[in-house]
Amino acid sequence: MSQSPPSPASVVELAEALIACPSVTPATGAVFDCLESQLAPLGFAVTRFLAGDAPDGPVENLLAVRRGPEGTRHFAFAGHLDVVPPGEGWTSAPFQPERRGELLYGRGAVDMKGAIAAMVAACGQIPAEAGTLSFVITGDEEGPARHGTLALIDLMRARGVAPDLCLVGEPTSVSRLGDMMKVGRRGSVNIWLEVEGVQGHVAYPHLADNPITRLVAMLAELDALVLDEGTDWFQASNLEVTDLACGNPATNVIPARASARISIRFNDLHTGQELARRVAAIAEAHGGTAQAVISGEAFLTQPGAFSGILADVIRAETGIEAELSTSGGTSDARFLKDLCPVIEFGLCNATMHKRDEAVAVADLEALARIYRRVALAALDTGH
Amino acid sequence: MSQSPPSPASVVELAEALIACPSVTPATGAVFDCLESQLAPLGFAVTRFLAGDAPDGPVENLLAVRRGPEGTRHFAFAGHLDVVPPGEGWTSAPFQPERRGELLYGRGAVDMKGAIAAMVAACGQIPAEAGTLSFVITGDEEGPARHGTLALIDLMRARGVAPDLCLVGEPTSVSRLGDMMKVGRRGSVNIWLEVEGVQGHVAYPHLADNPITRLVAMLAELDALVLDEGTDWFQASNLEVTDLACGNPATNVIPARASARISIRFNDLHTGQELARRVAAIAEAHGGTAQAVISGEAFLTQPGAFSGILADVIRAETGIEAELSTSGGTSDARFLKDLCPVIEFGLCNATMHKRDEAVAVADLEALARIYRRVALAALDTGH
Repeated sequence: MSQSPPSPASVVELAEALIACPSVTPATGAVFDCLESQLAPLGFAVTRFLAGDAPDGPVENLLAVRRGPEGTRHFAFAGHLDVVPPGEGWTSAPFQPERRGELLYGRGAVDMKGAIAAMVAACGQIPAEAGTLSFVITGDEEGPARHGTLALIDLMRARGVAPDLCLVGEPTSVSRLGDMMKVGRRGSVNIWLEVEGVQGHVAYPHLADNPITRLVAMLAELDALVLDEGTDWFQASNLEVTDLACGNPATNVIPARASARISIRFNDLHTGQELARRVAAIAEAHGGTAQAVISGEAFLTQPGAFSGILADVIRAETGIEAELSTSGGTSDARFLKDLCPVIEFGLCNATMHKRDEAVAVADLEALARIYRRVALAALDTGH
Repeated sequence: MSQSPPSPASVVELAEALIACPSVTPATGAVFDCLESQLAPLGFAVTRFLAGDAPDGPVENLLAVRRGPEGTRHFAFAGHLDVVPPGEGWTSAPFQPERRGELLYGRGAVDMKGAIAAMVAACGQIPAEAGTLSFVITGDEEGPARHGTLALIDLMRARGVAPDLCLVGEPTSVSRLGDMMKVGRRGSVNIWLEVEGVQGHVAYPHLADNPITRLVAMLAELDALVLDEGTDWFQASNLEVTDLACGNPATNVIPARASARISIRFNDLHTGQELARRVAAIAEAHGGTAQAVISGEAFLTQPGAFSGILADVIRAETGIEAELSTSGGTSDARFLKDLCPVIEFGLCNATMHKRDEAVAVADLEALARIYRRVALAALDTGH
């Protein structure tokens, strides 16, 4: 028998190669070399660059583009090669991928080197004439994320590279691959509250002005706020007081100052700025001040054509009806939504950020098939 | 001309001698030697002893008794020789008494070595047959006060020494010597509040239980309490939140625990225990706990014969109508009231605990005259 030609690497092999490169956030170097070596043979033009200065940089980023024929559409895969620190207590070494039974173990198996391997495997099965494909991959999504996907977006704009649709490979599935995609994310704002009073002896409260009294009244009013009742696609916006501080050791002293911090996760009925102004007004009414830092605005990729493609493919490959969700924390989708409609879909997230992070080999293979069919359908849209 | 016999030390000289002995709380040794040397020549039997162990002891205490004829009454002077630390920035050395103009400067000039000097000077002018006099003097009133006046009370009880009336020389005057005496004190209780919740991510509040939300509601309810409207002799009881703590550095985390501390100054409509129970019930209703430490119960020496003597003498010596007050912090009167009716009266408190503490020489002399006439009248009561 004649030998068959060398077969392309399987999605599991691609994932193992990526996992074998330690890449605790911020990731640079070897793990990018590895991905570049997987993409170049598929015809992608790879650009790698460092962005940002200390303390939030430098960050390594990778943009890989395979241009399709003139007039075809552009579909982008986005994600990150950095991982959270492995922590202690792993059964096998976190950066030595190991298959035990039906599972592949290693830090990043689901968040999200496994998904990137599935993207690569998918693109290996997509003909060049189908359209333009790109990889938008950062080494800092788990960290401050100031010089990661934002810098990639700047580069794409500078080059006039504009995807029509973008899929982020975050591990959105919950119990079974395909049970959830994310069509939006809530916004997030943290607000630092401070009240200055007049220090004094507790025996002479009329000579003092207790800042805690005013802070408590302020926080009670904030806790009582009903920001909204949720929307068709978002749960209700929520405010939590996440810290209190005063630091007065003396039992007989009314302190001079007290402070608190709140966190608001909000849906697309609000903007961070509007919420910051609203909290500041309440703070000021109680004689306090408020300093807001907006981490991200809420966004929604209106369910329709793109989510329909994903739902159809997921149903065909897994038999599952994917829930369209906007729950959870933030991701780089909050930046990419400024480029084009973006949806997140990926592996099961049960073990992400935990020890013994693992992915089912069957899920990796199914995800590669899903990504391939989604990309093909997305590139075909509008033809 | 023949020389006159050596005149007894003036009240100013007595005060200077006491101030010249550094006695930052807890006081021991030299300052007690000094007072003993002033009392012994007046016929007082002096007992000095150390009480308590570290960390709140040992504390030096002095009981001096000059017994009057059988069947006469017993009048006690009480006070303390310890002083608060001098701090920085004095014009003259805090433990080198210095007269500048009409004032005598030095730490303890008004709180309360000046008053003790006035007591000594007063006793020098009271004949032995007038009755029994005593000095109940501790070296720890400004500190924890666990082994000071309490130990003196134990000793007096053990010896069967029971004063009929007691005058504490705390600096109760405000603007002018004689404008205020204290006929009682509010009680004081500090309560530590804690709420345990369930830590979690702010993006998933339904999986967490924010202890701050419950603490804020608890504190708002406590701040809204109206304990009473005051009485004929007491201002309204008052609750202040004096500290808040959580210590959660992570903006995206709902903390596991939050705490606060409150201080209640209360009048004789309440007991510390009743208030502690009431606060604990509110804390528990919000899922928290409360740990109370009662510093002292409220007491009132019902205005009448004793306060009348003081008011009459003050009016005669100064022309001022003394206000009968129960305001301010706690003092050792809270212990002495268990022995006999007790009233506090002393110098102007404007400079107490401050730098450049000073007493008017004229006030020292007037206070010695007032103390003498009060003791004589008190000893005469009921004859």
